[in-house]
Amino acid sequence: MKKIKIKVPATVANLVCGFDILGMAIHEPYDEMELKLLDTPEIIIKHEDDFGLPEDPSQNVAGVVLQNIQKHFQLTQGFEVTIRKHIKPGSGLGSSAASAAGAAFGANVLLGNSLSDEEMIHFAMFGEELASGVRHADNIAPCIFGGITLVKSSSPIDIIPLSAPDLFVVAVHPQVEVKTSDARQILKKNVLLKDAVEQWGNIAGLVAGILKNDIPLIGRSLHDVIVEPVRSILIPKFDEIKIKSLEAGALGGGISGSGPSIFMLAEKKETAEHIARLMKSVYDEIEIESFVYVSKINPAGIEIIEEQ
Amino acid sequence: MKKIKIKVPATVANLVCGFDILGMAIHEPYDEMELKLLDTPEIIIKHEDDFGLPEDPSQNVAGVVLQNIQKHFQLTQGFEVTIRKHIKPGSGLGSSAASAAGAAFGANVLLGNSLSDEEMIHFAMFGEELASGVRHADNIAPCIFGGITLVKSSSPIDIIPLSAPDLFVVAVHPQVEVKTSDARQILKKNVLLKDAVEQWGNIAGLVAGILKNDIPLIGRSLHDVIVEPVRSILIPKFDEIKIKSLEAGALGGGISGSGPSIFMLAEKKETAEHIARLMKSVYDEIEIESFVYVSKINPAGIEIIEEQ
Repeated sequence: MKKIKIKVPATVANLVCGFDILGMAIHEPYDEMELKLLDTPEIIIKHEDDFGLPEDPSQNVAGVVLQNIQKHFQLTQGFEVTIRKHIKPGSGLGSSAASAAGAAFGANVLLGNSLSDEEMIHFAMFGEELASGVRHADNIAPCIFGGITLVKSSSPIDIIPLSAPDLFVVAVHPQVEVKTSDARQILKKNVLLKDAVEQWGNIAGLVAGILKNDIPLIGRSLHDVIVEPVRSILIPKFDEIKIKSLEAGALGGGISGSGPSIFMLAEKKETAEHIARLMKSVYDEIEIESFVYVSKINPAGIEIIEEQ
Repeated sequence: MKKIKIKVPATVANLVCGFDILGMAIHEPYDEMELKLLDTPEIIIKHEDDFGLPEDPSQNVAGVVLQNIQKHFQLTQGFEVTIRKHIKPGSGLGSSAASAAGAAFGANVLLGNSLSDEEMIHFAMFGEELASGVRHADNIAPCIFGGITLVKSSSPIDIIPLSAPDLFVVAVHPQVEVKTSDARQILKKNVLLKDAVEQWGNIAGLVAGILKNDIPLIGRSLHDVIVEPVRSILIPKFDEIKIKSLEAGALGGGISGSGPSIFMLAEKKETAEHIARLMKSVYDEIEIESFVYVSKINPAGIEIIEEQ
């Protein structure tokens, strides 16, 4: 294999009550990436999008992943990567994870599938570290493996693929900035034991609902008493979006990653599309531009579109 | 139906990381209960054991359950209950839950199965309230339904039966007293968010392991960073028992309920029996009497032995 073209999906981390442990792949938006194996040891990054991301490999999320793979395996070959990013950086939809996971996944294919799943995650986390300062896998894992994944631990890497319930996901990305570092700093270091117990009851319910394909149980479990009450104040109109979505028939939902995107789950396409319109109109009213995506939970993760 | 004889199993609540939400039924020890429907509205409680438990219905765990059922359904009939208790009160093996659950289950059968599952739990919790001051269902639910159950919420009652992995359970009950109220008071009101995240990663892993029947995942998830470090100091030789059990091949384990019993899970009968001997010898050495039980996870819960 010398060249590969892949479709790399957006991801929703945290999944309401699953702060820092759960993540879910969706179909829309997604990035396109093309990776070539080079005979020379250079790493070349090209961005065919307008986000102004650095193309110096050591400053680029995909670049650092490939640098680390190259170094670890003492490769004499290099990589040329072309990225057409559609997942906006800073959206809370796993934009950096997509670049990092795409680089690790693509390199693995180009190198004859010589990396284990854990190694792909390990190298992709260098990209997350560059982007946010934290080595975390809650977007990378669902991006690569698809469906909903549990990151039981990122050191050592212990990832449990759950499954992909047949549900629609609506995500709205209001064009406001929420820095991951701010979203992290605003969290309290201590939580009440009684709140933690309520939270882990919901997480246990959510995991059981996903694995038993019990949709009402998923709905009953989508409550976050710890992170959402604090972080949602950083997102304009969060409460209104949530209340209107639930009234319109959403199963539940909350902040995507550390925001500002908000996501909702729904059983029917019409419900999802109705929620999408409601979300858009809430932001239109206060003149905040927003992008809305409706798709299903993506069971496949990264997909190969072309190989040569 | 006028008379029923039932076998009511012991239960292990908390299940290491699942504080206040998970519980598991075992086969040994168990209580025997006989319930008769009376034409007169009396409630008669007889204990055929040596634990000195009160037989005044309003002071007896089974009694208050039956009083509440009688009152709620405005019954003109009464109940006579004979209890042969083998699950020692204060063992941490769900002794009060067994009496409460047995009373609710038995009354339901005698009344022609007119109670819903939620009603059985609801009435049984009056017994737990009398015994410990807290309306909780984490022993009652597995006692009635068998296997491992998730109490997502006890108000409103939301119980999710998980399943019953094919595993052996060893439980040791050292003859020391740990009051539930002390075990509760010793807990800190606040926990670190990072510890809570680690705990809910383990809970999510445990629930996934149970439902996917992934035994190594169950083992990797049996860690409690919040409750066990605090409560285990109330139980003599806890650390030694745990270390020796793990060395002997236990999957994992911890405090049963609020103690003093300790339980361990094992895949093989020989491993379980070896662990049982180790546990006993640890307590023999310091001259604390102990009872050891080896059985499997009980998938059935309460069983009817005889009906007339």
